Amino acid sequence: MSKKSKKISALQEKKGINSPEITDSKAVSKLQSKRKKQPSSKQLIKGILEGNITALSRAITLIESNSPKHLEKANTIIEACLPKANNSVRIGITGVPGVGKSTFIEALGTHLTGLNKKVAVLAVDPSSTITKGSILGDKTRMEDLVKNKNAFIRPSASGNTLGGVARKTRETIIVCEAAGFDTILIETVGVGQSETTVHSMVDFFLLLKLSGAGDELQGIKRGIIEMADAIIINKADGNNIKPANLAKVEFNRALHLYPEKASKWQPKVNLCSALHNEGIDSIWDMVLAYIEQTKANTYFETNRKEQNKYWLLQTIEAQLKSDFFNRELVKSELKKQLRRIENQETTPFAGAEALLKLK
Amino acid sequence: MSKKSKKISALQEKKGINSPEITDSKAVSKLQSKRKKQPSSKQLIKGILEGNITALSRAITLIESNSPKHLEKANTIIEACLPKANNSVRIGITGVPGVGKSTFIEALGTHLTGLNKKVAVLAVDPSSTITKGSILGDKTRMEDLVKNKNAFIRPSASGNTLGGVARKTRETIIVCEAAGFDTILIETVGVGQSETTVHSMVDFFLLLKLSGAGDELQGIKRGIIEMADAIIINKADGNNIKPANLAKVEFNRALHLYPEKASKWQPKVNLCSALHNEGIDSIWDMVLAYIEQTKANTYFETNRKEQNKYWLLQTIEAQLKSDFFNRELVKSELKKQLRRIENQETTPFAGAEALLKLK
Repeated sequence: MSKKSKKISALQEKKGINSPEITDSKAVSKLQSKRKKQPSSKQLIKGILEGNITALSRAITLIESNSPKHLEKANTIIEACLPKANNSVRIGITGVPGVGKSTFIEALGTHLTGLNKKVAVLAVDPSSTITKGSILGDKTRMEDLVKNKNAFIRPSASGNTLGGVARKTRETIIVCEAAGFDTILIETVGVGQSETTVHSMVDFFLLLKLSGAGDELQGIKRGIIEMADAIIINKADGNNIKPANLAKVEFNRALHLYPEKASKWQPKVNLCSALHNEGIDSIWDMVLAYIEQTKANTYFETNRKEQNKYWLLQTIEAQLKSDFFNRELVKSELKKQLRRIENQETTPFAGAEALLKLK
Repeated sequence: MSKKSKKISALQEKKGINSPEITDSKAVSKLQSKRKKQPSSKQLIKGILEGNITALSRAITLIESNSPKHLEKANTIIEACLPKANNSVRIGITGVPGVGKSTFIEALGTHLTGLNKKVAVLAVDPSSTITKGSILGDKTRMEDLVKNKNAFIRPSASGNTLGGVARKTRETIIVCEAAGFDTILIETVGVGQSETTVHSMVDFFLLLKLSGAGDELQGIKRGIIEMADAIIINKADGNNIKPANLAKVEFNRALHLYPEKASKWQPKVNLCSALHNEGIDSIWDMVLAYIEQTKANTYFETNRKEQNKYWLLQTIEAQLKSDFFNRELVKSELKKQLRRIENQETTPFAGAEALLKLK
């Protein structure tokens, strides 16, 4: 965890302890007195289900740990949280750096807490495993939200692989939901496959864009438009209003080119100025309309179950592959076969057979 | 193979034997006298490299066979063909039923043989494994091409899986190229993942469309536009010319919405009337421009190598998965874990771990 991330976490823990609805809980005073020791799974579970932010933070730290002992404890906690989880709206938010994701999340999060919602902000950021940075680690522009007692902000989990980060994020969603967070915002910077990963763990997927000169759709990664349930054109203020409206027309046209989604939802384009807090309420109304529609046609529930099944199979496949390809014998034979393919000395199928003999 | 497919194959074999450039070959008379017996791999290889259609057909039959003895023979032949393969242009052609794929292939194939090209027409049709039909099995509209000595038409290989069909098709490409075919047309009906499969084995991917009332882009499968190097609006004749031109504008706009391709090729939209043989020459000129551009920027060659590596890894992954998931113990545990996920009694990751313990 970076220095800044640690600062946020510390702030969160402090906030949790000071929040009035839990100071009278026996579990919390126990947690406080045991601060230097480690609270038991039972204590953490109790704390989480009571909405205690300290307990939640500590459970997430266990989930993010790589020590087998911690993971065992984490699994016990997750299992106990499962029956209380699943009752939230999960929203994925993506967009290139500079589009104003933090400002947008600050504005949306503040709007939601104003509606008495409890908002958890998580991040999937595979780049943080390389740069040791973290996209929620320097959220100076989220300073209101971070102090808000109904908001919980957690920097991106680190992990060796996107799969690892994804797993930790998905398990974090479960404990946050069990702690009473009814809205989960998951940010991603869109490095590698991270958008697809976030898309497969949320109910609603939102793409932030800027208007600008030239072709509005250039620079969008392949497949992103197809995944989006909404495109939000941010910074639609001042001189930007006219180009933003033009971009809206252009994006709307693009969205209509796609075949109907399984959710039957027709993706929308909205304008907003997160900085000036304009358009945020309509965006939330749109999300509510989506949820109403997809709950009515049962897509909401079936999609979540499909996502879980996808993750089950995904995890197994990733493991089968890494077990096979990480063997030294396989590594050297793979090199050899790839070279033979380069030189047109073998077909991909004969090469595959040579490798599979090593199984 | 269906009755009609057999008729075509028989016609092809007959044509091969009667074609003047090979009747004086000793290998062929040997093949003829041994017709009831099976020619050896050596004889077949010699025949293929001399451009003998009978030898080619027989080799493909071996490739398509499921008998281990035949496959061994097939592998010997493919290995011998490899150094002479790879010198063709491979074109994928897709479009919904009724769009006129056969008429288009007949027109394009005839145009190409008129330019002294040798054209092989193959198909990837996963539905034929279910319906026992075959998309090139009833090509009454290809009657000119089927009789043309510089054309070779082979119905879709059957197989239990799309992967099986794909493998057979890819190996068939190799023997066709070794037999001197310099243009390979691969048709697909676009069932399931078949477009992606064909896209990953061709140099140029062509989507056939019709103009019509309403939104021209409705009914296009997800991802197809992104894969297309060209969209051809067929049946652009008579009263259809005006709507076809409107569709062209619409498709051009859609194609410009996408980020630049790795090939640096900007996909084009062309009109044609395959029935009246109009626009076919410009389509071929476009393909030639594509090849010139991608050979100059080396994409052509690197793409083929990438495709081969993709198939190597794809084959291994498919095998690892089927080895694991086809075990009875795994099957019943998977059922159990999926049910636990449905009932929210476990996470996808805990479920995956329970399954992986059976490895």
